[in-house]
Amino acid sequence: MGFVVDLNCDMGESLGDYVMGNDEAILETITSANIACGFHAGDPTTMRKTVRLALEKNVGIGAHPGLQDLVGFGRREMAISADEAFDLVVYQLGALSGIVKAEGGHLQHVKPHGALYNMAAVNRTHSKAIAEAVYKVDPELILFGLAGSELVKAGKRIGLKVAHEVFADRTYQANGTLTSRREPNALITDQDIAIRQIVRMVKEGKVRATDGTDISIMADTICIHGDGKTAVEFARVIPGALEREGIMVRKIGEIK
Amino acid sequence: MGFVVDLNCDMGESLGDYVMGNDEAILETITSANIACGFHAGDPTTMRKTVRLALEKNVGIGAHPGLQDLVGFGRREMAISADEAFDLVVYQLGALSGIVKAEGGHLQHVKPHGALYNMAAVNRTHSKAIAEAVYKVDPELILFGLAGSELVKAGKRIGLKVAHEVFADRTYQANGTLTSRREPNALITDQDIAIRQIVRMVKEGKVRATDGTDISIMADTICIHGDGKTAVEFARVIPGALEREGIMVRKIGEIK
Amino acid sequence: MGFVVDLNCDMGESLGDYVMGNDEAILETITSANIACGFHAGDPTTMRKTVRLALEKNVGIGAHPGLQDLVGFGRREMAISADEAFDLVVYQLGALSGIVKAEGGHLQHVKPHGALYNMAAVNRTHSKAIAEAVYKVDPELILFGLAGSELVKAGKRIGLKVAHEVFADRTYQANGTLTSRREPNALITDQDIAIRQIVRMVKEGKVRATDGTDISIMADTICIHGDGKTAVEFARVIPGALEREGIMVRKIGEIK
Amino acid sequence: MGFVVDLNCDMGESLGDYVMGNDEAILETITSANIACGFHAGDPTTMRKTVRLALEKNVGIGAHPGLQDLVGFGRREMAISADEAFDLVVYQLGALSGIVKAEGGHLQHVKPHGALYNMAAVNRTHSKAIAEAVYKVDPELILFGLAGSELVKAGKRIGLKVAHEVFADRTYQANGTLTSRREPNALITDQDIAIRQIVRMVKEGKVRATDGTDISIMADTICIHGDGKTAVEFARVIPGALEREGIMVRKIGEIK
Repeated sequence: MGFVVDLNCDMGESLGDYVMGNDEAILETITSANIACGFHAGDPTTMRKTVRLALEKNVGIGAHPGLQDLVGFGRREMAISADEAFDLVVYQLGALSGIVKAEGGHLQHVKPHGALYNMAAVNRTHSKAIAEAVYKVDPELILFGLAGSELVKAGKRIGLKVAHEVFADRTYQANGTLTSRREPNALITDQDIAIRQIVRMVKEGKVRATDGTDISIMADTICIHGDGKTAVEFARVIPGALEREGIMVRKIGEIK
Repeated sequence: MGFVVDLNCDMGESLGDYVMGNDEAILETITSANIACGFHAGDPTTMRKTVRLALEKNVGIGAHPGLQDLVGFGRREMAISADEAFDLVVYQLGALSGIVKAEGGHLQHVKPHGALYNMAAVNRTHSKAIAEAVYKVDPELILFGLAGSELVKAGKRIGLKVAHEVFADRTYQANGTLTSRREPNALITDQDIAIRQIVRMVKEGKVRATDGTDISIMADTICIHGDGKTAVEFARVIPGALEREGIMVRKIGEIK
Repeated sequence: MGFVVDLNCDMGESLGDYVMGNDEAILETITSANIACGFHAGDPTTMRKTVRLALEKNVGIGAHPGLQDLVGFGRREMAISADEAFDLVVYQLGALSGIVKAEGGHLQHVKPHGALYNMAAVNRTHSKAIAEAVYKVDPELILFGLAGSELVKAGKRIGLKVAHEVFADRTYQANGTLTSRREPNALITDQDIAIRQIVRMVKEGKVRATDGTDISIMADTICIHGDGKTAVEFARVIPGALEREGIMVRKIGEIK
Repeated sequence: MGFVVDLNCDMGESLGDYVMGNDEAILETITSANIACGFHAGDPTTMRKTVRLALEKNVGIGAHPGLQDLVGFGRREMAISADEAFDLVVYQLGALSGIVKAEGGHLQHVKPHGALYNMAAVNRTHSKAIAEAVYKVDPELILFGLAGSELVKAGKRIGLKVAHEVFADRTYQANGTLTSRREPNALITDQDIAIRQIVRMVKEGKVRATDGTDISIMADTICIHGDGKTAVEFARVIPGALEREGIMVRKIGEIK
């Protein structure tokens, strides 16, 4: 049997009259949607509309909980305790579950957002709290985390299915972490290079770090970004490019 | 078989370091707790602590969704659409459901809060939207509304179990509505009068309105308030007073 | 001496990463900017950037306070008390004043936003509270209100300079109020009609209501909207169109 | 001439129906009030009431800006940029200034709150941004900061009057910082010890650190806390205890 990978994107980030992202267009090409839950972005009405769209497009639905920081879009680190991390994941995951249930769908996965995602990648206490939060709400959910991170380890230990996430448009350090956005070489803007990177990650389990060394990496799901100028175009070409390389694109719930 | 009634109180209204109410003491005497869901009061950590306490005390757990207005405590009317009412109930109900699930309990009921409760009592479109929100998330939930109000009618029509709610410490108008808090005679401060009023509502299905006429009223659940100075004392004496009158106090989930 | 009018537009409505409006382009053509103050839109950083831009373009700066309702963009009516209206205007006006002072500018005017503007147009108690709020913070500020409304009357009574505001792209009722946006004929989408309407309001003090009658109207400042698709284009042509009719466009602080 | 010191306390931390602190009682004994500005605590109506009370009691009024984190009461560190620190101080300081002006008073000082205070004590970039924010809004304001901290240094450099702040009920490390609240010996609960500590700080400019060494410390203003059980009692005895030691208690604006 051949290679298969999931393609995910953050969605539902609009807020009232504020529009963000190109959800309808992006939903045509991805297989899993991470839907903001109202703390860093999104609101109940936006969430329902996004869930409905995802169901129409047969895209897997995930909760995308974040820190309570609308102005900073959940990207500013905050010194929350592990208990607070647990509580805000349960709350936001529950809220989206309610909406998904009301729309007659089912929830597939959970992926923390922004600073919460980064904290969960390296902090054992907080990653354990987040994995427990997901497990206690629904042990069938798939937990997304940075490939090889503390979060996917914590998820596995508690008995969750996990998805190692890789990025098409970001470069990697020799220790497997993403190059900080503050560095000039953090982003990959050349589509061909981005596609070669993800093809290699999926087929060979390797990525070339910025120092030139090859490192091992698991790639269950590829994150693409939906709010840049070229995002829609990039999202549109990826599935074809992967399939030409013999990599099927399927939602994570059908893979795991 | 004799008379039976549920005793409910709003709970979990603290917010971070802000403490409101006497939840632990009140939970000793009530049978159903309406837990604030973070929009008008409460936060994820407070919600979890309150759910845990309610489970320890074997008190029925309800979601208490409100308008997004912390400064006004959800009591200021807001011109939200019926769709917005649907969405904010689903969101908050889902959030509390997640917490209840994470704590190994189950949700018993839903009672809208403050201005949302008042709107749902008289507005057919909004009461229908709220009843649908509850039904679509979980058709087994019991919907609390002002006795005889549009909300309980909407709940019944859609197929929900409903609970007609009466108030121990409020006076009634001849049309069955509560006397506005702006009126001098809105509140009943004498405990004996309050208890006689609820005993009569439960046993005879009647209440004396402020104009002296008797009106019919259903009394499935009695609301007491938990944040006044005498609230704990009043909550403590009610169950005994009711049982001396041959009225058993049971949580609504065991009655309906 | 000839005709003169001010041209105002709502500005600074972005929020963190959420972008709204075309502030830079619109600031090229207007003479007064109403800057959101963080309750219905805007945030401290957006406010500073907008103030700086307005100063660069020599556009008069106004505070644009609104209800505390980000999700509803301050457009949903809320039952706030007159004291609460006073307090939230003082707070927001003060916040923007601080930013203007820090940037070395000075504040020219105040215009309530959305539901607060509508409330102030018809409610005597609330319009009085808002006028007092402005007067007590700075009696030199110019108060903007719907032409002929309670708000401009309240402003005059307390001793403020006031500006009667008219709309280029809205139709009027025979009683001088705007046609509700829920009506099909509320908006004027034809540029030529819009321009003829404002020219007549400025030069003749009259506008044709939707029932065909002519009504009297004062026009000190014309509101244009900055967030529609054609807003920038419309804003660009208005000053020239007015000047061809012999109407000078000047910021209100130079007129009053 | 003898010794003199200011006595300050955080105030106006209530939020809508949530009551925090014993403001009226504490205002009887302190000389400077740090009033919360709505980001970590407080709301426009609470701010006005607190300003009015402080004016009645002839207590110096200060702005107490904090991080935008109601649930964490502004005590959780957040990775805000120096520009964001500047902006949120200007905004909150402006908002309180507006209220003070509307009440006919004048603003005396600014003291950052919680995590913002701690950040400003050690971070040169952020302390500079905060000092600039204060200076640009009003160069006559007095800036409060931890005694000997980066914030008071930054304030001095830019040309502000500054007040070195000491704590009656906290222990000190050998490097002049406060012992972290996570340590068991962080708090001084014995009133006599607390008073001896502040008397010595004021008269000798020294404090005994937890390692037994004496360190130099400036003491322009003493912070007391207003929300504990014994706070009111402690606040009541301090002025007398100081005056018995020949230390006059005066508001900072009369000292500097």
